[in-house]
Amino acid sequence: MAAPALSVGNALHDGLRAIVGDRGLLLGGDVTARSCDPFRPVPPRGGVIVRPASTEEVSRVLAFCHARGQRVVTHGGRTGVSGGAYAGPDEIILSLERFARVEEVDPIGMCATVQAGATVEAVHDAVAAEGLLYPIDLGSKGTATIGGTIATNAGGNRVVRWGMTRANLLGLEAVLADGTIVSAMNRLVKNNTGYDVKQFFIGSEGTLGIVTRAVLRLVPAPSTQSAAFLALPDFGSVLDLLGRARRLPTLSAFEVMWEDYYALVAASRTGRDPLAAGHPFYVLVEAMGYAGETDPALFDRFLEGAHEAGLIADAVVAGSGRQIADLWHVREGSEVLVRAMSPFVSFDVSVEVRAAERFVETARTALAAAFASVRTVTFGHLGDNNLHLGVNVGPDTVAREPDVEAIVYAIVRDFGGALTAEHGVGRFKRAFLPDHVALGALATMRRVRAALDPTCLLNREVLF
Amino acid sequence: MAAPALSVGNALHDGLRAIVGDRGLLLGGDVTARSCDPFRPVPPRGGVIVRPASTEEVSRVLAFCHARGQRVVTHGGRTGVSGGAYAGPDEIILSLERFARVEEVDPIGMCATVQAGATVEAVHDAVAAEGLLYPIDLGSKGTATIGGTIATNAGGNRVVRWGMTRANLLGLEAVLADGTIVSAMNRLVKNNTGYDVKQFFIGSEGTLGIVTRAVLRLVPAPSTQSAAFLALPDFGSVLDLLGRARRLPTLSAFEVMWEDYYALVAASRTGRDPLAAGHPFYVLVEAMGYAGETDPALFDRFLEGAHEAGLIADAVVAGSGRQIADLWHVREGSEVLVRAMSPFVSFDVSVEVRAAERFVETARTALAAAFASVRTVTFGHLGDNNLHLGVNVGPDTVAREPDVEAIVYAIVRDFGGALTAEHGVGRFKRAFLPDHVALGALATMRRVRAALDPTCLLNREVLF
Repeated sequence: MAAPALSVGNALHDGLRAIVGDRGLLLGGDVTARSCDPFRPVPPRGGVIVRPASTEEVSRVLAFCHARGQRVVTHGGRTGVSGGAYAGPDEIILSLERFARVEEVDPIGMCATVQAGATVEAVHDAVAAEGLLYPIDLGSKGTATIGGTIATNAGGNRVVRWGMTRANLLGLEAVLADGTIVSAMNRLVKNNTGYDVKQFFIGSEGTLGIVTRAVLRLVPAPSTQSAAFLALPDFGSVLDLLGRARRLPTLSAFEVMWEDYYALVAASRTGRDPLAAGHPFYVLVEAMGYAGETDPALFDRFLEGAHEAGLIADAVVAGSGRQIADLWHVREGSEVLVRAMSPFVSFDVSVEVRAAERFVETARTALAAAFASVRTVTFGHLGDNNLHLGVNVGPDTVAREPDVEAIVYAIVRDFGGALTAEHGVGRFKRAFLPDHVALGALATMRRVRAALDPTCLLNREVLF
Repeated sequence: MAAPALSVGNALHDGLRAIVGDRGLLLGGDVTARSCDPFRPVPPRGGVIVRPASTEEVSRVLAFCHARGQRVVTHGGRTGVSGGAYAGPDEIILSLERFARVEEVDPIGMCATVQAGATVEAVHDAVAAEGLLYPIDLGSKGTATIGGTIATNAGGNRVVRWGMTRANLLGLEAVLADGTIVSAMNRLVKNNTGYDVKQFFIGSEGTLGIVTRAVLRLVPAPSTQSAAFLALPDFGSVLDLLGRARRLPTLSAFEVMWEDYYALVAASRTGRDPLAAGHPFYVLVEAMGYAGETDPALFDRFLEGAHEAGLIADAVVAGSGRQIADLWHVREGSEVLVRAMSPFVSFDVSVEVRAAERFVETARTALAAAFASVRTVTFGHLGDNNLHLGVNVGPDTVAREPDVEAIVYAIVRDFGGALTAEHGVGRFKRAFLPDHVALGALATMRRVRAALDPTCLLNREVLF
């Protein structure tokens, strides 16, 4: 009985090898040595990684797979935390790792043309040489690829100023499940020539097509940076401060940390304690601009106004780039969380700004009613509605994860919030999706997916 | 032979009346008194205007039409200039005019919930009362509706700062051709819960569904405004100035006028001559911010830097809001153009910033080779790539319009430009569409349209 299976396998390998060559095909240990998960070893189970080195090769690989009914999972940097890169035994991996060049940086058109496998950091470096910035900035930028960030509409820390990936993309090229190349490499800010087809692929988590190239929108690299770390007496003060910060055209981040988060990182003996613990809220506010003469004064004036209005209980203002990095270090305390809280259930949700405090209280109360021991950490990009919540319910947290999720996501839904703000649905949140989008919207999603990938070959287990 | 037709007509009328009531149905003279064109009388030819007053009524009307195979054209403010509101004899009109309320303004969440029939100006007024701004600003704002601006992804004058309609929309509700209500009334900046279905409808020119409600993203209303009108010696100086202007986070407009445009309006005796004519380029640059103490100085410093670099041949700096309005009056000289140039063929294209001068020269040269007499006016939102070009080739301009368009659009295509920047394809540019989008992109558009409106009942003659 093994012979036919082997022969089928070989036909698959041979067909793929004929398109991408020996270097383009990984098998055996080269496949199982990889992980589909950024935190733990989860090898692809289909035994094949195909690595096309051009759009045409991607197209030919997909046309070949389409003809065979072969399912495909796309790999970028595999930094996603929702299981979008996981692959089952009947799925092969298509990786963009050999199609990773920054093709062009245009300082007048303020855009960069890049191949999907380029890392976000490689793009940052290439455009910085021209005095430009690609505003998408996230912790995993050294590994995360442009294709992956497009497929997931990645956000990060500067969304309050420059928006998510969708807002920083002028054009893209993608390949549909049947191999059709969709070229929409637009370089123009204003272009209403038919549907803006790039929008279909952004945030589609690889289900509508494989993004192969992109035209990224750039901004001038800021030359000034100011930041302060503030303690606030109550949530009303946080809202008031946010309203004032929105009147800074240079605002580049507004990160809120609840007391539970700050207490944990401040006690970690990792140099993350710029202020005393015990205040209800902490805010890291940052501005980036282009006017060395006036930007620092503008930022100081914003802080003075907030102080005079009684919003600030305590404050540290950074005096150097090094000090700014130290303040960000407080906000980016994930390794402290992992050490002190693991295992924990992690949430990446959005709620309306004015309801954020009430949402957190409601979730904590509900969890406390359901579990004997509950520890939480809460922080997020409040200006973008995005809260990250970590929940530990004791030694059996992993086993109780479905119960924790059911409780929190039901509250998210009741608050009109978002199941996922920036991490995406992937495989892990798929079961919750129907409860968080309206029936007609879900039907529309299904119709569009069926239109572009009728036999559902691309990333089949993702989204819905 | 008339009796069956009448009876069919009555069944249609009766069915619609049963849904929307007497007030909701216009027939006869009430229909023919309207125009589908903002400039001249083009009455709808189908004899029926149905005016639902709720999303549910829109849904029932479309379900009813779907069951009968009845084609529908949607009307908002009918300010579109691409024929998108035109309706043939077998098409009825669905107008959103009775669903036009601003439902809610949320100053903390920075958003407004509005019904599709509300005018842009009504939204401006409602949010101004809360100290907020809806950034989409266009000449027709008193008549153009939110639904229409979403369907066409309207741009306007402040795109360089706040983007097009797409960038200023958090959520929407739409009704598909079969009556399915798609609710995606998202209020959250970050939300990756499945496909962002609102993106499908934005800029779809009414072909994928009828937008019924929306959640608009707001910004704090600026409290400072600075503007200057500059004459520049060459296009290199324009590019240099634009690069500097992009480093003003308060930049709100960067409007470029070629010599041909300025000569015409300056000679019009309408008070549109702040500077001497004869310079190759004129720029209206504007900044809006929130810091009364520093914003004017920042703007002056920008101008000083440009002057010291030799970019500015002559300049007027506005000293008051009234003077700023006067400078905008120069840029918005459409009634002068109509008087002095009519009839003219109007273009709304985008090209790469660095190629804009060469594009204009190439188009003028080609037109001069084809026609004995050619007059042009050229202006646009250069920071957004958008150029408006008006062409008169003598008394038979109207008859020669197809030839003029063929020449200019071929050059647009050769330059990798956009057939339409912000006006949309509508009916008028439909024949040119296939020449301006890649084959795979057009196939994708067709697949998505077929998925959401399989029998093509909505705005059938629009786009492709």
